[in-house]
Amino acid sequence: MNPAINFCSQCAAPVRFEVPPGDSLKRHVCGQCGSIHYQNPKLVVGTLPVWEDRVLLCLRAIEPRRDKWTLPAGFMENNETMAEAALRETAEEACARVELGELYTLISVPHISQVHALYRARLLDVDFSPGAETLEVRLFPEQEIPWKEIAFRTIALSLRHFFEDRQAGNFGFHAGVVPPPP
Amino acid sequence: MNPAINFCSQCAAPVRFEVPPGDSLKRHVCGQCGSIHYQNPKLVVGTLPVWEDRVLLCLRAIEPRRDKWTLPAGFMENNETMAEAALRETAEEACARVELGELYTLISVPHISQVHALYRARLLDVDFSPGAETLEVRLFPEQEIPWKEIAFRTIALSLRHFFEDRQAGNFGFHAGVVPPPP
Repeated sequence: MNPAINFCSQCAAPVRFEVPPGDSLKRHVCGQCGSIHYQNPKLVVGTLPVWEDRVLLCLRAIEPRRDKWTLPAGFMENNETMAEAALRETAEEACARVELGELYTLISVPHISQVHALYRARLLDVDFSPGAETLEVRLFPEQEIPWKEIAFRTIALSLRHFFEDRQAGNFGFHAGVVPPPP
Repeated sequence: MNPAINFCSQCAAPVRFEVPPGDSLKRHVCGQCGSIHYQNPKLVVGTLPVWEDRVLLCLRAIEPRRDKWTLPAGFMENNETMAEAALRETAEEACARVELGELYTLISVPHISQVHALYRARLLDVDFSPGAETLEVRLFPEQEIPWKEIAFRTIALSLRHFFEDRQAGNFGFHAGVVPPPP
């Protein structure tokens, strides 16, 4: 998920991959100006939008997992809050307007250096439509969720929590980890 | 918090700052190989370690906020979970061993493109000591917390939640936002 770093983005000199003084991990360090180019996990933020008894899913138009279903979510941008990112992604991917609820799931995906965060959300209307990275947007009742065609395990896990919590009548907050695929 | 990008880290050619096709935000785009160099928010993860009625704080040895008190926390690294990051930072900054509890606060700091996450934690012993980026580690009862000398607003906010929740006898999960300073 992190592209290789060959050259310094400050001065264009070649970088070395080595442990800087006082550090404990290898970093890309410029051999000329000394800049250290850190790489850190990315936050993927989105919503679990609900209309009556149904959940909104998006059919992905892009890789990875083109033609699989997902919740509206994407990479958080600089200078926004997590809640703003969730609303923006819901608008971009599903052209949907929601009232944001509580943060619902927060799942580390260490093998791809990501953390996935999903908010519960209430659709304000059903005038949604596919955004540029979406082929189709549809509302699914629980019994029609295409479980074998869900794009990402964090999404399937969040949906399972949602239907279990709805059945129990109590929506908690769920933190978790998705390990590498077997 | 994000250094300028002048050159492509893939091929060393100069980059342009422009909106790539199909995007809506300006990115650093290589004029030669076309690589897009995204910049995204960083997660800062740590713990709120407790021993009996006292909370562990670290006096910072480095900028920003040298000589101010903070909870043990730092940038999450690639290929770790949030919980692993919290334990690692607690060991690095305070040489402290804790039993990790639940995620306690998750606070967006959009003007510096960070999200700060703190876990409740129970110190397993009092054999803590300053790590390389810490001048002093000390346990504080509530009435001695140096409120005017806390390094970051997310830390002060998390400590306030903790003492209020402890008083109320109920520790929830707190999501929030810290706006730019006035």
